[in-house]
Amino acid sequence: MPSHSSKFFPEGTCPQDEEGNLRIMKATVDQVIGSLITIGDEILGGDIPNGNAHHIALELRSCGFRLNRIITVGDHEDAIIQTVQECLGNCRFLIVTGGLGPTEDDRTPNAVSRALGKPLLPNDEYLGWLRNRLAETGRPWSDEVGRMAYLPEGAIKIGVGMAGFSLEHDGIPCYFLPGVPGEMRWLMANIVVPDLERRFPRRLRYLKEFLRIQGLYESEISERLRGFDPSSLGVEIGYLPQGPEVWLTLFASADTEEEARSKIADSERAIRQRFDPHHISGRSADSLERVVGRELLARSWRLSVAESCTGGLLSRRITSVPGASDYFERGCIVYSNQAKTDLLKVPESLLTAHGAVSEPVAAAMAEGMRKQAGVDIALAVTGIAGPAGGSPEKPVGTVFIACASQRGTSVEKHLFRGDRERVQECAAHGALVHLWRTLIQ
Amino acid sequence: MPSHSSKFFPEGTCPQDEEGNLRIMKATVDQVIGSLITIGDEILGGDIPNGNAHHIALELRSCGFRLNRIITVGDHEDAIIQTVQECLGNCRFLIVTGGLGPTEDDRTPNAVSRALGKPLLPNDEYLGWLRNRLAETGRPWSDEVGRMAYLPEGAIKIGVGMAGFSLEHDGIPCYFLPGVPGEMRWLMANIVVPDLERRFPRRLRYLKEFLRIQGLYESEISERLRGFDPSSLGVEIGYLPQGPEVWLTLFASADTEEEARSKIADSERAIRQRFDPHHISGRSADSLERVVGRELLARSWRLSVAESCTGGLLSRRITSVPGASDYFERGCIVYSNQAKTDLLKVPESLLTAHGAVSEPVAAAMAEGMRKQAGVDIALAVTGIAGPAGGSPEKPVGTVFIACASQRGTSVEKHLFRGDRERVQECAAHGALVHLWRTLIQ
Repeated sequence: MPSHSSKFFPEGTCPQDEEGNLRIMKATVDQVIGSLITIGDEILGGDIPNGNAHHIALELRSCGFRLNRIITVGDHEDAIIQTVQECLGNCRFLIVTGGLGPTEDDRTPNAVSRALGKPLLPNDEYLGWLRNRLAETGRPWSDEVGRMAYLPEGAIKIGVGMAGFSLEHDGIPCYFLPGVPGEMRWLMANIVVPDLERRFPRRLRYLKEFLRIQGLYESEISERLRGFDPSSLGVEIGYLPQGPEVWLTLFASADTEEEARSKIADSERAIRQRFDPHHISGRSADSLERVVGRELLARSWRLSVAESCTGGLLSRRITSVPGASDYFERGCIVYSNQAKTDLLKVPESLLTAHGAVSEPVAAAMAEGMRKQAGVDIALAVTGIAGPAGGSPEKPVGTVFIACASQRGTSVEKHLFRGDRERVQECAAHGALVHLWRTLIQ
Repeated sequence: MPSHSSKFFPEGTCPQDEEGNLRIMKATVDQVIGSLITIGDEILGGDIPNGNAHHIALELRSCGFRLNRIITVGDHEDAIIQTVQECLGNCRFLIVTGGLGPTEDDRTPNAVSRALGKPLLPNDEYLGWLRNRLAETGRPWSDEVGRMAYLPEGAIKIGVGMAGFSLEHDGIPCYFLPGVPGEMRWLMANIVVPDLERRFPRRLRYLKEFLRIQGLYESEISERLRGFDPSSLGVEIGYLPQGPEVWLTLFASADTEEEARSKIADSERAIRQRFDPHHISGRSADSLERVVGRELLARSWRLSVAESCTGGLLSRRITSVPGASDYFERGCIVYSNQAKTDLLKVPESLLTAHGAVSEPVAAAMAEGMRKQAGVDIALAVTGIAGPAGGSPEKPVGTVFIACASQRGTSVEKHLFRGDRERVQECAAHGALVHLWRTLIQ
């Protein structure tokens, strides 16, 4: 898997801890590395993805904090105890989510009490607060709810939701957040991050930027970068394949955000010189559908789309951008041949002679759509997404993409591998790349 | 946070190990618990969610295996070594993803070699295979690729992708999979799970089934289930909101799959009696688009779709089902009013009098589409997805859904909350629900 290794210092000259993290950068600025424990059988069992971990990781990084590990364990006291103890030896802050509710299977306070040797004590303030809260919302009081106000000694209740507390152990701040995403997010933004910022004001700043690379394999990208030493610019690079795109990641750390930003900008300039303009479509925020939208707006061009095997996915990507109605006129999903002749005026003779999945039909679809919709540019896709419908000449994954504009019509033939979903995804993405390259050429 | 605790046995009567897992059910049937390590700085930094962990957890559970922990660490040898060693003491199988690629920052083989004390050796067979593979696809050979064929002693290459190996350590099978989702999934399904099934034939079987509930809130579902005791049928139930659906989960464990299956079937029957037929659309595998497809096929009806605010998402969901071309005739994404009059023959007077987002226009879109495409049933959606375009009368989120068939035309008005993406998602889902209910009525 791609990664962002510590190439910032020449091998061996950089003080690392056993996690491979740079321990000391300057006397007054350092890295603040924490651990995250997410508790929940529903994650271990695959019922839900660990969305909380993703949110917390992203929020921490954007504020200059890093995680050395994310551990998910089940709702079992002994497993929680062991994991909390393992993490505390190896981090400067600890965040734990889940297991704070009022039910029998919410075991975090008990486990924390045992892990840290701090007895569970009733917190009168919290108890009173819970009573008021329930009275306000008209819900009846129960002993189960009362149980929530028993916290490990020294802990304080945080936030305005029902659950959540924090405590300090051997100087390490520990935050215990409910697993309910809305409450967790509120506490992260309003309590945890501000408290961490107050405790660690002189931390190293991190900045990460992606360059979205189109139409090159990882190894081809790596070849173009041969001899380029990002560390001389204070940046680490990595590769992140994201569906049909490869993201080239640039990571900088510095005393200030401005400094990090300038390192990224310098290395981006150097990298762009090694690629053709039609290989780098944009940065993180510049999804291909956004870039295409901007290019269309800049030309005051209107776009229409005719798609068969992608079944609406191509139009869906284009219209996911707010304001797409300013340049997207219509889309037609022409599954049947009848629809191709009705809506795009593709001649029946062409369909008979070449089949619906062919270069001439793709071109006729794009040209027909451009004329019928009266737009400046039209994009068409026809192919075999599978699992059925393939033949020796035209196997599953065969896709033709055509783009028609005042500059003429260009058609590309592709053979995408994978299952139906993957072929549809690659075909829609390939069509966006084709459109983008036509626009910028 | 929702969870599925071990309520199957009365408190205290069930033998548990330190992870809280049932250790021994019968002498010859036991739980097989493994650990999962996902390697990648991009997960710790929040660049991407840990989709691989979710997939693996779900696939293991569905085959009767469980995880006791999921740990994410960065691409640092020492961190990987420590984590592998920690996990091996506490599991019956180990799965590791990530860090197998050809680049400098892929450190898994090295780390595994050091963690297990097995030297890295060149694997000639793998090397030859890599050479052939690159030659076949016309990519040049490089030393970076050659590096991949150095594996810890005793390891064997698995699968047909570029990366992936397995080995046995102190009797514990360990699988090392690439982080690229497609390759990882293929290896899980075709190598890892079959191998685990062969090694652990006499394991406790788990079965989880979802019932997909449409158009009811969690609290409404819970109300309908009041007084129903699933534990008397040996089943635990839980609630899992999934976008606009709520999944009611049924979990059973038993010595045999048949026994678990029968427990689930019994409780499903009891649950269905408490709901209307138009509330439960199907089980796990029965996505609404599949159910709708089956209903259309059963009637030999052909469907066409006219959508505006959903921008292709509705057609995309319908055509994601293999074989959709047997009943899906065409879709039109009619963003402009011109497209609505051209393709659907919606009268201009109607658009002027009521606006494009209105009940009469929705009905005219569905009826026009049905007539123009010559199909049995047509579905239309028009609405305001936002962020712009709302008004006091028709705020962002206002959506009209119409369905036209031989039985007439029905129109529903909805007000969906949330951002553009959420409104589009709810509108497409609402349209599928409307279509499904029209079909089964």
